[in-house]
Amino acid sequence: MRPTPRQQVRRSKERARYETAAIHAVLDAGFLAHVGFSIEGQPFVIPMLYARDGEEVLLHGSIASRLMRGLAEGIPACLSVSHVDGLVLARSHFHHSVNYRSVVCFGTARSVDDPAEKAAALARFVDAILPGRAAESRPSDRNELAATLLLRFVIEDASAKVREGGPRDDPADLGTDYWAGVVPLQTRYAAAVSADDCTLPLPPSVVRVCPEAR
Amino acid sequence: MRPTPRQQVRRSKERARYETAAIHAVLDAGFLAHVGFSIEGQPFVIPMLYARDGEEVLLHGSIASRLMRGLAEGIPACLSVSHVDGLVLARSHFHHSVNYRSVVCFGTARSVDDPAEKAAALARFVDAILPGRAAESRPSDRNELAATLLLRFVIEDASAKVREGGPRDDPADLGTDYWAGVVPLQTRYAAAVSADDCTLPLPPSVVRVCPEAR
Repeated sequence: MRPTPRQQVRRSKERARYETAAIHAVLDAGFLAHVGFSIEGQPFVIPMLYARDGEEVLLHGSIASRLMRGLAEGIPACLSVSHVDGLVLARSHFHHSVNYRSVVCFGTARSVDDPAEKAAALARFVDAILPGRAAESRPSDRNELAATLLLRFVIEDASAKVREGGPRDDPADLGTDYWAGVVPLQTRYAAAVSADDCTLPLPPSVVRVCPEAR
Repeated sequence: MRPTPRQQVRRSKERARYETAAIHAVLDAGFLAHVGFSIEGQPFVIPMLYARDGEEVLLHGSIASRLMRGLAEGIPACLSVSHVDGLVLARSHFHHSVNYRSVVCFGTARSVDDPAEKAAALARFVDAILPGRAAESRPSDRNELAATLLLRFVIEDASAKVREGGPRDDPADLGTDYWAGVVPLQTRYAAAVSADDCTLPLPPSVVRVCPEAR
């Protein structure tokens, strides 16, 4: 597929990816997006939890949120997800960088009003944060569904950008006394902390990611 | 200080912070921002490295970037930084959440053309990624400075939002068989990887964050 003008990566083209699988892989590796749109000429970039559902991205918020209601009107929006994988320490300031995976999606959102679809989507959000967790907690009731604004962000086009590997130094800087390399960054779970009023054992979803409790 | 309308946090007001120290603390804890602006009605949200400099935020990119040049024209922009600190697993789907620290800054950017100021700013970027690293690598030369577009994003107003602590469950859900608690998320450095063509020992900036090499 040929990229459309707004999605086309112009800088560092060798890092660009347009295949659906590459875009989905970056989306599926996270649960926090930064969603941008303008209201009355003022741009907003709001951090939001998300869950991918096929070619769409689910977003949710309170029915009382003016920004969510604005988004729901179908204004042009941009959804961005980034993961930083390491520090790239080059011999020159100029070539310092980070290793990362990011996607930028262009599209519009529409609200979902069907209660069954909303309930299913909220369960997807819970599983997007921690796989298997939805089955271990109470599904939303009618009042909770009514208080939730659920949006389907339809991806019209998107691009991913990936940088990996070591520093790309200028030939003239090789062999100098400056160390160069990568410091990988890892995100990991620490020991789970039970709620003060909870004496139950850790559930399977938690044990899978952090067996150690405290 | 009374928040202005665009910065005022309307949802979950108890999580909002407007003090400068709180906003700076969130900015200083990271180096990746999501910057949003509109060009010809199309919103863009672009991940960018940043470094705070007093009340301003430094951004940089290639002089050839159309988006950077657009930003440099002083169009309204929004800069957002978020850190996720843990998964909040409640007894109900509805109360699932994450612990986080985020800031949303509104303002405009202007380009910095003075070479000495650009060189100093690029050194700040390197130290923002890893403290002490700028002194361990070659400063930018004249060609590198000319190829770099450096922006000062002036924060006109900003707000921070912080969620911490355990799940806030409905009273009716307490005492059910659903486990509730928090799974903290930690970002840490893994063992540094020297560049293929580098046999020097790890420098102090790297040893400070990851003593173990591989």
